[in-house]
Amino acid sequence: MTVEYDGSEFCGFQWQPAVRTVAGTLETTLSRLFCEPVKVTGAGRTDSGVHATGQVVSLTTGAAFAFDRLTLALNALLPADCRVRETAIVGSDFSARFSARARTYVYAILNQAQPSALLARYAWHVSRPLDRSALREAARAFVGEHDFRSFCALPPGRPDGSAGSTTRRIARFNIESRGALLRLEVQADGFLHHMVRTLVGAAAECAMGRRRPEEIAAVLMAAERSAAPFVAPAAGLYLAGVRYEDGYDSFAEPPILAQASPLDGERPFP
Amino acid sequence: MTVEYDGSEFCGFQWQPAVRTVAGTLETTLSRLFCEPVKVTGAGRTDSGVHATGQVVSLTTGAAFAFDRLTLALNALLPADCRVRETAIVGSDFSARFSARARTYVYAILNQAQPSALLARYAWHVSRPLDRSALREAARAFVGEHDFRSFCALPPGRPDGSAGSTTRRIARFNIESRGALLRLEVQADGFLHHMVRTLVGAAAECAMGRRRPEEIAAVLMAAERSAAPFVAPAAGLYLAGVRYEDGYDSFAEPPILAQASPLDGERPFP
Repeated sequence: MTVEYDGSEFCGFQWQPAVRTVAGTLETTLSRLFCEPVKVTGAGRTDSGVHATGQVVSLTTGAAFAFDRLTLALNALLPADCRVRETAIVGSDFSARFSARARTYVYAILNQAQPSALLARYAWHVSRPLDRSALREAARAFVGEHDFRSFCALPPGRPDGSAGSTTRRIARFNIESRGALLRLEVQADGFLHHMVRTLVGAAAECAMGRRRPEEIAAVLMAAERSAAPFVAPAAGLYLAGVRYEDGYDSFAEPPILAQASPLDGERPFP
Repeated sequence: MTVEYDGSEFCGFQWQPAVRTVAGTLETTLSRLFCEPVKVTGAGRTDSGVHATGQVVSLTTGAAFAFDRLTLALNALLPADCRVRETAIVGSDFSARFSARARTYVYAILNQAQPSALLARYAWHVSRPLDRSALREAARAFVGEHDFRSFCALPPGRPDGSAGSTTRRIARFNIESRGALLRLEVQADGFLHHMVRTLVGAAAECAMGRRRPEEIAAVLMAAERSAAPFVAPAAGLYLAGVRYEDGYDSFAEPPILAQASPLDGERPFP
């Protein structure tokens, strides 16, 4: 299923005891519908405060359920800040996490003198003017295959307890202006813990004049957390889309960044 | 001052004892800055859950304060869901409420099969396809000077206790599509209690096929609350702008409806 959520009032995606998480909320609702315990797997483990427009979640069930009505039934029971966009039946070898080939995150920066009340939960407010060409230059330095150890808060572990690889391939890191909003889009095969927010933090430091974009290569080379200590706030980040081997891509634009169309171009009803 | 707020967690604009209101929040912060009790007057008394991008608030103070830094000082102290866009010193005869010549409200309807988690607080979700030409026809029927008694939850009172006039002049009631969002904009010299939400409710009933747009004239003629009982939800409504005699207009587009610009067209820094 493809899931959209407002991360503001969730303690992240991943299930944790005694706190409100996206996975826990979905599992409670699914277990109720299927009358059996359900565990879900998400394509990305978003942090507390991070939003999703295109999170993908998979699960296995033996329950007999009218699956053509699953989206409707789930949305009737889920809280307003967590909604299912669509559901599909897939092969038993499919995993939302391990079958994913690329993940796209979008980050919104509100770059104007005064903060915005209506964007407080949905964009990072930066009050000093950002140098957009320095931001673009920094972003370009991240594209390609690199060891992102410097940009990783918690290195991944393998099931046997050894350290996993911190090498990832960034396919794209684009920056666009939309009025006072800056839209950053980064796509990679996978991301490490806090990686997008640390990449955005380092790029923003360049755009504020605190670092030079030419330093990014050395920060990557350092392969050390302390080389890139600044993590951008969670509120501006969206897991926007996940692409799978069969070509399915769950991408959806965050509402505050949606390209407004003066025409009825979209077909909102299936 | 021009004020933006996310109305979701406020019990409306107007001061009330023991609950969180926009006026109460502004008064607490202003009283702290000015070291004296401050009372504010708003251009529009928005209900609980209603947002504002262009609310205008006036106040009188004898405090000595560096007024060029007032916006910055207020935003440093206000909560994240209430922000000041700008401040100005005006004549002592100015009242945000009584000097206003026109008010513009914007209403957002999300018209698609499934609800959206990120728009839950910011648009009214209508899952059945709306007939946009019926919506436009209904909106047109409201334009002009009418007695809006049927669309008024609580008739206005005069200081002497007698009933005030329920006649208002609607200058504009436009409807546009922006993807799956419908943007309704209504401008009038003034609005009665619940009037915008009741106008939107009646127009939406026409767009759902529950009423015919030709009935609107009779509903206006009835001059009775029970003729238009349906009130659209607060979450989709924004007090977007107030215009004054000197030509100042506080209008600002709600973020989810902002026309995205691919160019750096705006100048977000003064």
